[in-house]
Amino acid sequence: MTDSQKSSNAMWGGRFASGPDAIMEAINASISFDKRLYAQDIRGSRAHAAMLAAQGILTHSDAEAIREGLLTVLSEIEKGDFPFSTALEDIHMNVEARLKALIGEPAGRLHTARSRNDQVATDFRLWVRDQCDLVLKAIEGLQRALLTQAEAGAEWVMPGFTHLQTAQPVTWGHHMMAYVEMLARDAGRFADARRRMNESPLGAAALAGTSFPIDRFATAEALGFDRPMANSLDAVSDRDFALEFLSSAAICAVHLSRLSEELVIWSSAQFRFVALSDKWSTGSSIMPQKRNPDAAELIRAKIARILGSTVALFTVMKGLPLAYSKDMQEDKEQVFDAADTLELALAAMTGMISDLTVNRDKLEAAAASGFSTATDLADWLVREAGLPFRDAHYVTGVLVAMAEKRGVDLPDLTLADMQSVNPAITEDVFRVLGVHNSVASRQSYGGTSPVQVRAQIARWREILR
Amino acid sequence: MTDSQKSSNAMWGGRFASGPDAIMEAINASISFDKRLYAQDIRGSRAHAAMLAAQGILTHSDAEAIREGLLTVLSEIEKGDFPFSTALEDIHMNVEARLKALIGEPAGRLHTARSRNDQVATDFRLWVRDQCDLVLKAIEGLQRALLTQAEAGAEWVMPGFTHLQTAQPVTWGHHMMAYVEMLARDAGRFADARRRMNESPLGAAALAGTSFPIDRFATAEALGFDRPMANSLDAVSDRDFALEFLSSAAICAVHLSRLSEELVIWSSAQFRFVALSDKWSTGSSIMPQKRNPDAAELIRAKIARILGSTVALFTVMKGLPLAYSKDMQEDKEQVFDAADTLELALAAMTGMISDLTVNRDKLEAAAASGFSTATDLADWLVREAGLPFRDAHYVTGVLVAMAEKRGVDLPDLTLADMQSVNPAITEDVFRVLGVHNSVASRQSYGGTSPVQVRAQIARWREILR
Amino acid sequence: MTDSQKSSNAMWGGRFASGPDAIMEAINASISFDKRLYAQDIRGSRAHAAMLAAQGILTHSDAEAIREGLLTVLSEIEKGDFPFSTALEDIHMNVEARLKALIGEPAGRLHTARSRNDQVATDFRLWVRDQCDLVLKAIEGLQRALLTQAEAGAEWVMPGFTHLQTAQPVTWGHHMMAYVEMLARDAGRFADARRRMNESPLGAAALAGTSFPIDRFATAEALGFDRPMANSLDAVSDRDFALEFLSSAAICAVHLSRLSEELVIWSSAQFRFVALSDKWSTGSSIMPQKRNPDAAELIRAKIARILGSTVALFTVMKGLPLAYSKDMQEDKEQVFDAADTLELALAAMTGMISDLTVNRDKLEAAAASGFSTATDLADWLVREAGLPFRDAHYVTGVLVAMAEKRGVDLPDLTLADMQSVNPAITEDVFRVLGVHNSVASRQSYGGTSPVQVRAQIARWREILR
Amino acid sequence: MTDSQKSSNAMWGGRFASGPDAIMEAINASISFDKRLYAQDIRGSRAHAAMLAAQGILTHSDAEAIREGLLTVLSEIEKGDFPFSTALEDIHMNVEARLKALIGEPAGRLHTARSRNDQVATDFRLWVRDQCDLVLKAIEGLQRALLTQAEAGAEWVMPGFTHLQTAQPVTWGHHMMAYVEMLARDAGRFADARRRMNESPLGAAALAGTSFPIDRFATAEALGFDRPMANSLDAVSDRDFALEFLSSAAICAVHLSRLSEELVIWSSAQFRFVALSDKWSTGSSIMPQKRNPDAAELIRAKIARILGSTVALFTVMKGLPLAYSKDMQEDKEQVFDAADTLELALAAMTGMISDLTVNRDKLEAAAASGFSTATDLADWLVREAGLPFRDAHYVTGVLVAMAEKRGVDLPDLTLADMQSVNPAITEDVFRVLGVHNSVASRQSYGGTSPVQVRAQIARWREILR
Repeated sequence: MTDSQKSSNAMWGGRFASGPDAIMEAINASISFDKRLYAQDIRGSRAHAAMLAAQGILTHSDAEAIREGLLTVLSEIEKGDFPFSTALEDIHMNVEARLKALIGEPAGRLHTARSRNDQVATDFRLWVRDQCDLVLKAIEGLQRALLTQAEAGAEWVMPGFTHLQTAQPVTWGHHMMAYVEMLARDAGRFADARRRMNESPLGAAALAGTSFPIDRFATAEALGFDRPMANSLDAVSDRDFALEFLSSAAICAVHLSRLSEELVIWSSAQFRFVALSDKWSTGSSIMPQKRNPDAAELIRAKIARILGSTVALFTVMKGLPLAYSKDMQEDKEQVFDAADTLELALAAMTGMISDLTVNRDKLEAAAASGFSTATDLADWLVREAGLPFRDAHYVTGVLVAMAEKRGVDLPDLTLADMQSVNPAITEDVFRVLGVHNSVASRQSYGGTSPVQVRAQIARWREILR
Repeated sequence: MTDSQKSSNAMWGGRFASGPDAIMEAINASISFDKRLYAQDIRGSRAHAAMLAAQGILTHSDAEAIREGLLTVLSEIEKGDFPFSTALEDIHMNVEARLKALIGEPAGRLHTARSRNDQVATDFRLWVRDQCDLVLKAIEGLQRALLTQAEAGAEWVMPGFTHLQTAQPVTWGHHMMAYVEMLARDAGRFADARRRMNESPLGAAALAGTSFPIDRFATAEALGFDRPMANSLDAVSDRDFALEFLSSAAICAVHLSRLSEELVIWSSAQFRFVALSDKWSTGSSIMPQKRNPDAAELIRAKIARILGSTVALFTVMKGLPLAYSKDMQEDKEQVFDAADTLELALAAMTGMISDLTVNRDKLEAAAASGFSTATDLADWLVREAGLPFRDAHYVTGVLVAMAEKRGVDLPDLTLADMQSVNPAITEDVFRVLGVHNSVASRQSYGGTSPVQVRAQIARWREILR
Repeated sequence: MTDSQKSSNAMWGGRFASGPDAIMEAINASISFDKRLYAQDIRGSRAHAAMLAAQGILTHSDAEAIREGLLTVLSEIEKGDFPFSTALEDIHMNVEARLKALIGEPAGRLHTARSRNDQVATDFRLWVRDQCDLVLKAIEGLQRALLTQAEAGAEWVMPGFTHLQTAQPVTWGHHMMAYVEMLARDAGRFADARRRMNESPLGAAALAGTSFPIDRFATAEALGFDRPMANSLDAVSDRDFALEFLSSAAICAVHLSRLSEELVIWSSAQFRFVALSDKWSTGSSIMPQKRNPDAAELIRAKIARILGSTVALFTVMKGLPLAYSKDMQEDKEQVFDAADTLELALAAMTGMISDLTVNRDKLEAAAASGFSTATDLADWLVREAGLPFRDAHYVTGVLVAMAEKRGVDLPDLTLADMQSVNPAITEDVFRVLGVHNSVASRQSYGGTSPVQVRAQIARWREILR
Repeated sequence: MTDSQKSSNAMWGGRFASGPDAIMEAINASISFDKRLYAQDIRGSRAHAAMLAAQGILTHSDAEAIREGLLTVLSEIEKGDFPFSTALEDIHMNVEARLKALIGEPAGRLHTARSRNDQVATDFRLWVRDQCDLVLKAIEGLQRALLTQAEAGAEWVMPGFTHLQTAQPVTWGHHMMAYVEMLARDAGRFADARRRMNESPLGAAALAGTSFPIDRFATAEALGFDRPMANSLDAVSDRDFALEFLSSAAICAVHLSRLSEELVIWSSAQFRFVALSDKWSTGSSIMPQKRNPDAAELIRAKIARILGSTVALFTVMKGLPLAYSKDMQEDKEQVFDAADTLELALAAMTGMISDLTVNRDKLEAAAASGFSTATDLADWLVREAGLPFRDAHYVTGVLVAMAEKRGVDLPDLTLADMQSVNPAITEDVFRVLGVHNSVASRQSYGGTSPVQVRAQIARWREILR
């Protein structure tokens, strides 16, 4: 090895000046990132040792020594005292070597009827499963923040946009609740993914199972898995649970990016629908109105990061023959980064929504502009006056033109004005004109009327109780 | 229009010589692809008409005329007689215009209390839901083909690879069953996605709901949805069901790409583990052994195509404010292409697996090479002779070297040979040496022993009955 | 074939009811899309035939028959008379079979010293090269449209945004010219890609070259290539030219998506910076102000589509061993779709920009709000009054607060007001206050002052002459 | 701040227990990664200070103090003594704050006529430009290693594969040289990208340029840029140079993934074409032949990682309005990771190729199997005996069948045997039969004959001299 190091200086420059060994270590060792699996690794090993003893493969005293020693290792790592070694490549070897230093010979028996392949598959599943639980909790937190906003503004009218053009008035509460629904489906995806991945690979050994009389149901139960995986080749070869986690994270991040975009637009000088609190934005010492929506912009960008990780793992797994290939070592960094990113984005969004100041006057003024209740008038003509759609549209167009000419809104026209265009119009029409009347009238299930919105809020308060 | 056409020839070349109108039509019209939604569109409209009549919003005779007229339209489209018009932009307008031509004035009342926004969301959900059902059936077909292969070769030994290096012997049946498991999780994802998307957007109207006294529960039930969506803004704005379908398809396609890669490698002259039938490969008129695994290569590539579609829709949806934006028109082509691709890949793989000829002798010879049962020997030394792992590995290494020197395999050594290295070895050791003994010994749950494999086959036969 | 069809109906449902043959044809045949290569295929074959004759490999009369026959095929295809056959799989076989029907036996000699592998590589390179030329022309067209806008509005002030918050005033011309620069780099990428791909694969044969005494330099020259590729394995194996085209297209599409987003935001009721013409938007019969920016939204989405295609081809090519693998058949549809999409997006954007109506008053009013020239005041204090940065910011902050309190803008303060805060301020300060003064003062190279902007416009008028 | 911390413990769990401040810091601060820009940041600031002095905007003594102080900061960072502070958010503020601590008041004048927006754009361009230079050098190193392999094996025959099926014999040298060509195009892409990005954003200030009389040409020249960027909005808004770097890296990584796949397959027990050295693989203590190609597998996976980063930045940039948005802070981590990954992959591949042991006998045996020279026979019949293609194929088929029946290869048939099938065959035919004759005959430019391969090697030796 010294030889190769000596001769290599000429060939390798930069950070690899020390030659092949430095390169191989850099590309091969995983301890720099897989140490995040330490708790799962130790948990899995303790379950494995207990099972080995129960099955008579290990003595009870050896198993006890191992299980106690592993707790010591755990505590060392959590206290920051653990000397991680790159030479030992990964978290599994680091833990095992330290265990050996602590308890001596019995440490060597821990790896009986197990392989690094099923060990890493188990650790990683446990980690991703834990992350599902964290995400589920974080989603619920954001839903609560949205519910609080929805409750406050169940009656506030705002423009409902299509194509970023005002289409019809809706309520602030209705808009907030739309995200509660999206997040509920996100939560559903994480719950489904969690359930599907909750099977134990432990005992699949290298790939073929083992001839030791192990009890895979026992370790599965001890680790909170629903059952052992039914095919040992599959257990060590597949990473679909990670792909499903990543995809679900990416979908959730799409939802967050949409709300972020709205916050960025809504906090522009031209909209001023909302004001972000100082905590979630940055200002200018000399431009008092300026408040940069940094957090919203960063969350908007996070879908990109998670999508990148998703694409990366899909591409890693493409075309890999069974069983384990070293390519699969790339799985963890992508999932770690995506999980951290999603957790952070959910937390920051929860904070922003909680602290958001809504400019109710601006919302209402915007909702009323652009004859946003013209469709309500047309609908009334169809519904109450029995006009065919096309005629209703024609009459509405004439009345809008009349209002526009006078510089007023539709409810400002008189009944006489209206009847001059179509005599079938009655006083009742004013019931639907104006943005408040408009939203109040949209009482179809799931519609924007405050009654419907409050019903949905109540339903969600119940669900999240 | 004539004016702009006249002046435009100078500015626009190539296929857009006719100017802005041609460009706008090319970028804006969706009829060329969304006509695939015709059956769903008509189904949705018929349900809507029936509900409008039941609620007294439409007369029963109008509703009946509409419902009958739509059946005529359906039949025209299915017979290929329907004159699709690009000027009418999309499937919804094409159907409605034709309905008007067929039944006259009542056609105009169909769109009461509905908008293109909830209509397209409904049609697309119905289409994706149908596609989930098709995929579920196709997955089951492939599982059956794999089961048949597994049953035939439950005892055939083959090399179990890690890093494409022989690691331990496994059985052909075990390898086939690994894919049955992966596909079962794929099916689970499609079933979950189907359940989650099975809510009706119909009645959300443009985005705010409607003031007509509609019954969204009735249309939901008529269309086989579990319930109406609870927020009208969400109903017309989100496409997470399409993202979930695409992600699930991509994961399934990863599985198929892995099996394809194996088929390509296994059918190489160097492996010759399998021979593809003529149907799924192409030959050479002058090179008799050559058989190009075209279908396997194409399936291997399909994950790329589906991943591309997935990335596309994620990127479309990134940062779109609520509710409908025209960007979302890009959703359908990506999903159509991915769905077609997955269906085709599943069908082709089912065909290849069904027609596959397995070269059992080649498999067995390969399994036996490279001292693939050395780990069985080491395990025996730990398990039966009580040696610590490290010692067991040392003894095994010495015996492998002895066998290698003599040009024989481990089971060809005599007991005396073995005892000369470690006297604790007994006749019993031969029980685990040799590839057949090795696989037979791996009886842990989910392991590769024929007993375990047959148990799994039986379980799956029951499930798929 | 009848047998397999008969037995297959039970196994294959849906669109593959006719069994394996239908599936294999669906997955294997490429004629449905590669017929777009017809002109390139015929061009390549004509060059090949001429070279074969010049080298004495073919008689001149055979070569002439082939070359004439190919022109007939070309004309048939262009007239729409050509009977494309799926049974003949691809464009190469379709053309060759038709040639045989037209000229008989000599057609069979065309394929001498050639293979489908180098033929398709040649055709595809020619096609992508042509597409580079089309894109270069389309980019230039959009640059001209932007230049026209820039020229009209070289003095119009508008808000320069960061974080969608007003930061400093800039000019409309400056903003338009930013895109001219981006597009220039896009053009540079396509020009570089074109140059790099402009080497001829023809004569690489299946993969190893040929023993016929061909002249690859002659065919290269005849087809406008700079030279033949120097390695026959590389020539048939690589598709990096397609990946480079896709990546360049995706970068260009990012630029278009940014301008599209701006158009969507600028045409909202809250901004009203611009009005899109009727040609590029859709309106509402009853809401007169509503004008949905459909084309802008669709262009915004097109980066997604092109990125999807890019990811797809990268993933196809990942890990393919040399030389040709059937996976590579997936290359064409992705490139075709991305090329069509980019061409369409460039054309539509050119149309939108050409027809854009700018609301100069709205721009200017927005530019002046929010004390957008506060940094000009601070800069003046540093530059002219010699204040350290921190002090300059403090003084500015006090003056902004004073103006805000009085409800006026900075230039509305009197010199006395200003000197009351810092006596070093002179009359000269008014030279930089107010948005017009601000932009006029930013005369650094590439800055927003009309003088600089006009200089850049002049430079570009010269380049694009 | 204390208040929010107090109240927040209930709301924020996990790593954000300390509340909004911790979350905002986690999502907002970039110092953890952008500290890698320290050298570029200091270099840019020194050039800026020198220019400010030359233009009379700064005194020469202030500029000198700044420039000296920055060298001290540089040296502190390189010695590892620098106290990076997350509270100071990014590298720019960290450096500036330290400069102030070192030299006091003049430090505050450095930021005159500059903004963080043009500063970060400049730093990042310098960094990516440096990385282009590193990649170019690394590519050249790998090309040299491949050339050495090619030179050694210019005559060694091996199977030329299509579809992983033996198609025609080629030479080892030819195969190695295919990658030299691919890498040359990769280098071309990085060189083009470097040239295109080599323009200076410095002096664009926040976005609009500045009113200070700066000399952007001077700073551009001092930093090795070809010229200043011509539009200040563009200068701070675009990241296309990063997208181009990422895309080029991804294409290069595709090439590496293909060679990696070949190494994995070639080192399988079934192929045994090559043996990786111990340095680049891992073995088994008890299975002597097993040598896992870890490095090759990891390189194969790296395209996935780089593609992921590429997708991420494309998606970040999609639809961002000008000028700077905080989303763009996501640019650096993706580029850093991709650049590190590519550098590492190139270094590891260079090491593997340099240390590769080629099993010449295995290559040759494989090349000769499967009647791989049947096409040579057919070509001879066309070329020398004047047979039409179809007849030549028929005769070849009969002779192959004859050889197969006798269990021999084509060159083992006698002339009489051959003439019994077609009397036009002469002794000359043996000149092309057998793999060595076959490869020798393929003398078309770029073909696989040793003469051609040696000519290409010589050309490349000259280029890389």
